[in-house]
Amino acid sequence: MELLKRTLDSIGVPDEESMRLAQRRLDSLTKPPGSLGVLEDVVRRVAGITGREMPEYERRIIFTLAADHGVTAEGVSAFPSEVTAQMVANFLNGGAAINVLGRHAGAKIVVVDVGIACEIPAHPDLVVKKVGMGTANMAAGPAMSREQAVRAVEAGIEVVAERTAEGLDLAGTGDMGIGNTTSSAAIVAAFTSLPVEEIAGRGTGLDDAGLERKIEVVRRALKVNRPDPLDALDVLMKVGGFEIGAIAGVILGCAARRVPVVIDGFISGAGALIAAGLSPRVKDFMLASHRSAERGHGVILERLGLRPLFDLDLRLGEGTGAALAISVIVAALKIQREMATFESAGVSSKSD
Amino acid sequence: MELLKRTLDSIGVPDEESMRLAQRRLDSLTKPPGSLGVLEDVVRRVAGITGREMPEYERRIIFTLAADHGVTAEGVSAFPSEVTAQMVANFLNGGAAINVLGRHAGAKIVVVDVGIACEIPAHPDLVVKKVGMGTANMAAGPAMSREQAVRAVEAGIEVVAERTAEGLDLAGTGDMGIGNTTSSAAIVAAFTSLPVEEIAGRGTGLDDAGLERKIEVVRRALKVNRPDPLDALDVLMKVGGFEIGAIAGVILGCAARRVPVVIDGFISGAGALIAAGLSPRVKDFMLASHRSAERGHGVILERLGLRPLFDLDLRLGEGTGAALAISVIVAALKIQREMATFESAGVSSKSD
Repeated sequence: MELLKRTLDSIGVPDEESMRLAQRRLDSLTKPPGSLGVLEDVVRRVAGITGREMPEYERRIIFTLAADHGVTAEGVSAFPSEVTAQMVANFLNGGAAINVLGRHAGAKIVVVDVGIACEIPAHPDLVVKKVGMGTANMAAGPAMSREQAVRAVEAGIEVVAERTAEGLDLAGTGDMGIGNTTSSAAIVAAFTSLPVEEIAGRGTGLDDAGLERKIEVVRRALKVNRPDPLDALDVLMKVGGFEIGAIAGVILGCAARRVPVVIDGFISGAGALIAAGLSPRVKDFMLASHRSAERGHGVILERLGLRPLFDLDLRLGEGTGAALAISVIVAALKIQREMATFESAGVSSKSD
Repeated sequence: MELLKRTLDSIGVPDEESMRLAQRRLDSLTKPPGSLGVLEDVVRRVAGITGREMPEYERRIIFTLAADHGVTAEGVSAFPSEVTAQMVANFLNGGAAINVLGRHAGAKIVVVDVGIACEIPAHPDLVVKKVGMGTANMAAGPAMSREQAVRAVEAGIEVVAERTAEGLDLAGTGDMGIGNTTSSAAIVAAFTSLPVEEIAGRGTGLDDAGLERKIEVVRRALKVNRPDPLDALDVLMKVGGFEIGAIAGVILGCAARRVPVVIDGFISGAGALIAAGLSPRVKDFMLASHRSAERGHGVILERLGLRPLFDLDLRLGEGTGAALAISVIVAALKIQREMATFESAGVSSKSD
């Protein structure tokens, strides 16, 4: 709890002066003012987060947090539970979508086991911070203890701390955990009080009957546990997942260190809601990557006040949306660093 | 006219068998089927265009076509006309937004002078295919002769032919020409018969009075010239621009050679309308990059039946949107080539 408290206490606010300087530079570049639209917003926001007029972007990491979910016993996923561990092995072998898109974005993938239901063979790219062997079934009681909830969040804070020592300019979040769209739907419902059927989606590919069952399971989990929306740790312990808590921790850890953190899709969004519940200030340090095809994602983005960079009907997770977004964010930061100014290029400026 | 005719005749249709094979491979990769959304659509489309299950993406070029517009005499732009040549110098020095984003996307920028109103000093990266020293003022008569219109389109076909000799996997279009949003608005109005005020936008940054003037000038150009929407060359010669004709040529040249061509924003979209007017089949070889902030761009995308990859309020042109899109398209093609299959990775597939 000490680490979490200290982290929450050290989250500041965006640096207005750096944002002003960044804007002044953007306006001096050889393009009509504002003509790069959202790319310019990104530069301004990252300048505020990092306190730099021309932010760095060389050292980028996507943290992919993995854990299992007891609620899979209710038949809420199109894939069997053992796929969590199998996909983590795939991540470590470099064959998953997140590996391909991470390489494309020049981002290292750090895979963290925060609670897979079996032991994963040691691997140099795997960080082990197990909080448990999967959560308990939230449809029958709390998914985890309050102490485990704190440990999950702190696991995320720790992995960021361990990596910032060697330098970190840009971070992204990602997830792996069969059953975690069910947990995420419950988190969103707990925070917003919206009807579950407006939030729960098909996840990895449920049919109509599967979706009905999932909605019923989320309703049951909320009824059995009655999570308190004003207490983010209560929501996490009752209907969350270890990797979702750890995603919240990664976000908080980045915010405390003024590292811009790119939020992937629906599950990372649920983690972001937990983080924002613990510290509303953290929203200013997040960048949304995309609008997911999963039903409840729009509600999350609205609540966080974030505009996603694109909407490509992605619904894979792992950090794949964050990887694509990091590539766009790096492009924006290169604009700020590499473009010529009107003065240096000898281009006439606006005539009015 | 011979080259144009031959090019139109050699435009085929997407290869259904390659699309089927590409889909089969996409479904064998370690991800829920369809979970990469639009990225999977991109793979399928590029497979159909190129006739390859796993398309190549190494050799990428953005063609940035530049020319001047006589209609600038009417005060329709926020920037003076000499900025066209100054920005071309900036492109050749590597300091413009398109250079930064082209490098980011691993795309070479080929700058083509198809009608700048002055001589540009020779440069190894500049291709000169001048059709005239800028167009005539379309508000007073045709922007160019019909012969010049053909030559502008053929100039675009030629630059593609010259580059495909050394190999070209992915092309993008771009533009530079002070005054060309005015010409493009007239082209869109000519093809769609929509009211000009629903199409013309602020371009590089007109104020309200400037926008009013621009709308009036476009109306005048349409009234004076009466372009025939069923004759794309008539539209081009009466209210077009040399670079817009050349963009149409680049698109046609790519389609004829089965090279996927990524369409930038509003001006490239006007060129795409000209190309589609000359050969409706060409639409199947285009990929839309983004939805521009320029007012009339949505109409163009709708008419071409293209879904843009993102909407980042860009309104710069040069090929900047195409560059960002090429980066996303390459990411999609890497997915197809580099991801592990369920079988190779030993991951259990869907349980239903």
